[in-house]
Amino acid sequence: MNDDVIRSTTLEKPVAPDLLANIDAYWRACNYLSAGMIYLRANPLLREPLKPEHIKRRLLGHWGSDPGQSFVWVHLNRLIKRDDLNVLFVSGPGHGAPATLANSWLAGHYPEIYPDRSADERGMLKLFRAFSSPGGIGSHCTPETPGSIHEGGELGYSLSHAFGAAFDNPDLIVATVVGDGEAETGPLATSWHSNKFLNPATDGAVLPILHLNGYKIANPTILARIPHDELEALFKGYGYAPHFVEGDEPEAMHQRMAATLERCIADIRAIQANARAEGDRAETVTRPRWPMIVLRTPKGWTGPKEVDGHKVENFWRSHQVPIVDPASNYRNLSLLEDWLRSYRPEELFDENGRLIETLRALAPEGTRRISANPHANGGLLRQSLDMPDIRDYAFEFKRAASVYQSPTVVLAAFLREVMRRNMTSFRLFGPDETASNKLDGVYEVSGKRWVAETLPEDDDGGALSVDGRVMEMLSEHTLEGWFEGYVLTGRHGLFATYEAFVHVIDSMFNQHAKWLEKAKNELDWRRPVPSINLLITSLVWRQDHNGFTHQDPGFLDVVTNKSPDVVRIYMPPDANCLLSVADHCLRTHDYVNVIVADKQPHLQYLSMQEAIVHCAKGIGIWDWASTDQGAEPDAVIACAGDIATMEALAAVEILKEHCADLKIRFVNVVDLFRLMPDTDHPHGLPHRDFDSIFTRDKPVIFNFHSYPTLVHKLTYNRTNHANMHVHGYRERGNINTPFELAIINGVDRYTLAIDVIDRVPRIAGSGAHAKEWLKNQIIESVRYAHEEGIDRDEIREWTWKG
Amino acid sequence: MNDDVIRSTTLEKPVAPDLLANIDAYWRACNYLSAGMIYLRANPLLREPLKPEHIKRRLLGHWGSDPGQSFVWVHLNRLIKRDDLNVLFVSGPGHGAPATLANSWLAGHYPEIYPDRSADERGMLKLFRAFSSPGGIGSHCTPETPGSIHEGGELGYSLSHAFGAAFDNPDLIVATVVGDGEAETGPLATSWHSNKFLNPATDGAVLPILHLNGYKIANPTILARIPHDELEALFKGYGYAPHFVEGDEPEAMHQRMAATLERCIADIRAIQANARAEGDRAETVTRPRWPMIVLRTPKGWTGPKEVDGHKVENFWRSHQVPIVDPASNYRNLSLLEDWLRSYRPEELFDENGRLIETLRALAPEGTRRISANPHANGGLLRQSLDMPDIRDYAFEFKRAASVYQSPTVVLAAFLREVMRRNMTSFRLFGPDETASNKLDGVYEVSGKRWVAETLPEDDDGGALSVDGRVMEMLSEHTLEGWFEGYVLTGRHGLFATYEAFVHVIDSMFNQHAKWLEKAKNELDWRRPVPSINLLITSLVWRQDHNGFTHQDPGFLDVVTNKSPDVVRIYMPPDANCLLSVADHCLRTHDYVNVIVADKQPHLQYLSMQEAIVHCAKGIGIWDWASTDQGAEPDAVIACAGDIATMEALAAVEILKEHCADLKIRFVNVVDLFRLMPDTDHPHGLPHRDFDSIFTRDKPVIFNFHSYPTLVHKLTYNRTNHANMHVHGYRERGNINTPFELAIINGVDRYTLAIDVIDRVPRIAGSGAHAKEWLKNQIIESVRYAHEEGIDRDEIREWTWKG
Repeated sequence: MNDDVIRSTTLEKPVAPDLLANIDAYWRACNYLSAGMIYLRANPLLREPLKPEHIKRRLLGHWGSDPGQSFVWVHLNRLIKRDDLNVLFVSGPGHGAPATLANSWLAGHYPEIYPDRSADERGMLKLFRAFSSPGGIGSHCTPETPGSIHEGGELGYSLSHAFGAAFDNPDLIVATVVGDGEAETGPLATSWHSNKFLNPATDGAVLPILHLNGYKIANPTILARIPHDELEALFKGYGYAPHFVEGDEPEAMHQRMAATLERCIADIRAIQANARAEGDRAETVTRPRWPMIVLRTPKGWTGPKEVDGHKVENFWRSHQVPIVDPASNYRNLSLLEDWLRSYRPEELFDENGRLIETLRALAPEGTRRISANPHANGGLLRQSLDMPDIRDYAFEFKRAASVYQSPTVVLAAFLREVMRRNMTSFRLFGPDETASNKLDGVYEVSGKRWVAETLPEDDDGGALSVDGRVMEMLSEHTLEGWFEGYVLTGRHGLFATYEAFVHVIDSMFNQHAKWLEKAKNELDWRRPVPSINLLITSLVWRQDHNGFTHQDPGFLDVVTNKSPDVVRIYMPPDANCLLSVADHCLRTHDYVNVIVADKQPHLQYLSMQEAIVHCAKGIGIWDWASTDQGAEPDAVIACAGDIATMEALAAVEILKEHCADLKIRFVNVVDLFRLMPDTDHPHGLPHRDFDSIFTRDKPVIFNFHSYPTLVHKLTYNRTNHANMHVHGYRERGNINTPFELAIINGVDRYTLAIDVIDRVPRIAGSGAHAKEWLKNQIIESVRYAHEEGIDRDEIREWTWKG
Repeated sequence: MNDDVIRSTTLEKPVAPDLLANIDAYWRACNYLSAGMIYLRANPLLREPLKPEHIKRRLLGHWGSDPGQSFVWVHLNRLIKRDDLNVLFVSGPGHGAPATLANSWLAGHYPEIYPDRSADERGMLKLFRAFSSPGGIGSHCTPETPGSIHEGGELGYSLSHAFGAAFDNPDLIVATVVGDGEAETGPLATSWHSNKFLNPATDGAVLPILHLNGYKIANPTILARIPHDELEALFKGYGYAPHFVEGDEPEAMHQRMAATLERCIADIRAIQANARAEGDRAETVTRPRWPMIVLRTPKGWTGPKEVDGHKVENFWRSHQVPIVDPASNYRNLSLLEDWLRSYRPEELFDENGRLIETLRALAPEGTRRISANPHANGGLLRQSLDMPDIRDYAFEFKRAASVYQSPTVVLAAFLREVMRRNMTSFRLFGPDETASNKLDGVYEVSGKRWVAETLPEDDDGGALSVDGRVMEMLSEHTLEGWFEGYVLTGRHGLFATYEAFVHVIDSMFNQHAKWLEKAKNELDWRRPVPSINLLITSLVWRQDHNGFTHQDPGFLDVVTNKSPDVVRIYMPPDANCLLSVADHCLRTHDYVNVIVADKQPHLQYLSMQEAIVHCAKGIGIWDWASTDQGAEPDAVIACAGDIATMEALAAVEILKEHCADLKIRFVNVVDLFRLMPDTDHPHGLPHRDFDSIFTRDKPVIFNFHSYPTLVHKLTYNRTNHANMHVHGYRERGNINTPFELAIINGVDRYTLAIDVIDRVPRIAGSGAHAKEWLKNQIIESVRYAHEEGIDRDEIREWTWKG
């Protein structure tokens, strides 16, 4: 099985000596700048002997992976120049921002974005001083870093981001350095399989470069400490053709890398040419063994070999700052100076501190400069979706709360048309759940992406296709990573996933929200990117045999901790509201929109026009369900979420019957952030408006889809907060019928009605009798559910009598 | 590289025909029961023709992986009987609970635990009816499932759980069925590398069985659709010796599986014998290529081949209920009956519905029955840790708030002794962060577990060792999975991880908390297991160059959504409090204890004795820091967390100077759930006690470590809640000095002091002047930080003057 494995200990030397010397010089310039960022606050070009006062007062930054990453970068430059390649760079180790910053600065792109850090000595010093300094530049490839779509502050997502960027960008090559520490994370380990979802004819290419620099913060990496045959087998097993570039002697390594990179690019082009030559016969596209590179170089390559008797180069001690005390230890100051001077800055920069002309000529120009690739600032390329009119997809019915329909089935028809109109800029993501979530209606327009083996039966129930627009893999991490890479390069999508398991990507959500907040609020040069749209479905209240593990609506708590400038939560109560919300979300940018909507049949309440109005307001009094005729009510029944709404309505109906003179105002919330004050969230309601809906002093019985404390978290400083009594999921469940689950968590109609009666002293008389009846109903419902395994018909088929 | 790959298309037939027929019959009994659970509410042994009224009213359950899992089980039984093996079974597909339930019931263990579901026809029917029914049995291997330590409701953790169970159990073999859908998840994909952390001499063995049944819910699996050479390479790359058992013809498959399993067990025993023969020369232990099995069988094997014109067996349509409408479709009723009768139940069960004697004899006995293995009910094996006296590790100092020390450094000395005394029942887990988190003091007793290649330099800074008790891999998922497997089998540990990235395991935390809640509150037969102890460190307030991505204290919001019976949160303000809290947590069981404590040097406040008292109370007034001399104060300054406490104290000092007659009560919170009412959490304070601390009407300025809304979430129904003004992390940050970060989030001493002044009208006069000064201090602090890159000395080195 060794035929397509290349160990580039080949004698091939594709680079002429002059060019090689220049490439090496350029690389030395990169390394000099990377080290300078970590250490220098003065004397940036070492025009005078290094003194303690030239050293920053606090030394911060990550040196370890910088030389290796810059090494990749300078060799990419060579081929970009030679072949006019369109290359995006993803830096997986993340901590190696100095490499990206150095290269962007040397290619002249960084100074274009940050003119104050200009391409001369003065700008160089400003760059050095800003790095890892307050108000300055981070040590990861943060949003502030030109050319980055991937921060790397949290490890594991470089490869999925890279594939997301490559999808539907047939001309693009996404060179992706995967850290060998990063490679130990779960999300990264499974994302190698993304190659089963990349169509060589219509997508771009990803060139993974596993940077085997041997160490993490303070430990060796697993992949650096297994035998070569295992490492080779692993990547062949993942479906790649691995190429090994290994060594530490720069000249030989330059030749090896140049030869290997040439070979990889040639292989990529051959794969693509072959697939594209097949023309429109998509079914003939087969999965190629894409090339990948294992680059084994010393950690902290070219840095100090040993400091204070400890090995540093090629050891984990070079992870961050290799020499920690140069300002206070003269021997180490000297060591630092020797190290910095080993790059011979005087040969690299002219008298103004500008990279010398010979070297400048090595960098590509304009948007071919890696950090200037427009895909890395995807908003530049963003085009609005061609959107159909949601009114054409409205769910029609005669009377509110009289028929059941699955909201996601209705949504699917709409998404199908969105997909049809945007066949190269919209994808649907789901972890093997698109059909389960009843979104399979989209399959009429496009199947499920699959670039692996197929069988005849695969056409049954949503065809597998190398052209499919539906991305299904049982890895929420990979899907979210793809989706983020896709939107950060300017395209659109929607990710539908089980409510309980969206927690799998809590951390990815956090990181993307943080990225957006910076990009949106602080970086004018980053153009707005399409929103991440998360459809949270298969909800807590309808889990049946899946039981307790599938009951977790707590993602919303995570979302509400993020910047109000970038997060939105919608809880459409029915299908038309879901359409209206989805239509809105797909038109937005720079948000994470979270839509909570179930797949099971639910009662339908609002016509399309009513839904549009209701969703635009985000919160509203439903007069048809209220019994206060616009007067001051005895109590407010509020609700958010489908089941919460149905049970709240049923409670109103019960109360109408049993406590006829009770005046109830019925409020439904779609846009959850309406509950917050306008001072805390752009969608927040001013206190005056909130009070006019929820009253200043009447009891509010709030039936909530998720954990009840979330409503308190959002409303704690409202006038009437002391009177808000929130019902919601209280972390109680097991194998239950839907109604039994509602009962044990107190969101059922009977419990709500009892709560209303308890809160309105005026009706204590009629209420007492009603409460007895209500309590009996609860007992009877549970008994029936346990005996029959289903809910009573009058519960299962309840509709609003009006 | 094919030498140690076995494709078991061998002609070897280790099982005699009689035994083979019996094994097949036993397997048929398993499959019959699995199908019966899904379908039957009457006529459990088909003693009469199948009628619609025998069919459950709601059909729920997962059939697809059951036959394959039972197939594994019956073959394990054979070798357990033959060789007296100690085998624990982990069911990765999870959804295949019917297989586990059937086997446990047939071996007589299930009826011992649930006597009502007895080993006869009556009990069989009760089992059938309870399955996937309200109040009954889940379709995953829930805590209610005997023999399970792994639910599988959320996929991805089977292998890490299995390795956790195997650690320090040298006699145990953990047979682990990995679902091929599950295998696509990130956590599972990286957990194969757990073999680099398993010591064959002192740990048990894990035998992974990848169940390649081809399909997920509605899609093929990736691993089922790649060529054989890639699949083989992948597992060789992961470091295993893969064995392939592939086919669908039962007789041949029985022989293949029997032969392969024999070979694998023999290889395991040989590996162990070899490693153990080396005796005490631990350094000679090298990583073996452990065997693993790829079991390729049809999904829904032996089920209906086709239903309503759709392929079902060997297709995803057999994932759940293969025939969905037997009660209303006579043709399909007949199909179901044919299917069920194909197992020939009349040959398997006697007239009482009891498994016939010949087959009963195939199952192991007593605790050798797989589901009765005591490791699966780890509380049975739990032994308390031998704990040192924390007073011997106290951090000594003269005066409160006068010296700085890293709390985790102090903790490390204590943990080192805990480790030394419990060298086979305590492990420390960390994602390459043990040294970074300043817990490397433990290395004096034991190094970092590493069963891969080593280099001489590895001894520098925490030795790598095949015997190391410190588990470091850059995968929070794998660590948490190991840890869960370790505690669920009765052992102890602590997992230290960066605060921001504990979100990576939000979902695992959720699932473990749900497991504990059920096991603790509803299952008497499950004995208490040691707690999961999570030390959340490298906190939001001390991130320097790591910036915004490393600032996320929101895990606590996730924790507070879980059952109050199983979650605890501690925020020790200093080192001695951390010792006291850690000492307590390591003695508890059935909790997830979350300890929030930083690694950086912090001010120290309490002596060991004071700390013990304070932590036992969980909340307390610090008289020495208060200025109200026990009288009714003008304002309460409360705090939770290290930086929050220091800044709150500094605010008191400032206010003492500028507003001399102001009476301040100083409150510190260690046990976060003290803030909740006692009706909502066992650690909650009664309202009376809460009011006596926080007053009923005075302003409370609460300086909080995490997001401020969390305090509101916990205290919204307190008497004085309207006067609680919470400062905390407001999702604002970048590269900042520590004090600058405090300022922009409003938790700094100056902002707190201003807030107090604003809330106490009595001191408006003196306050106005002070506020000017305070505002200037804020401006000056930020200016200095930006110019110098560090905080002003008087901030960095602030101590309490008293």
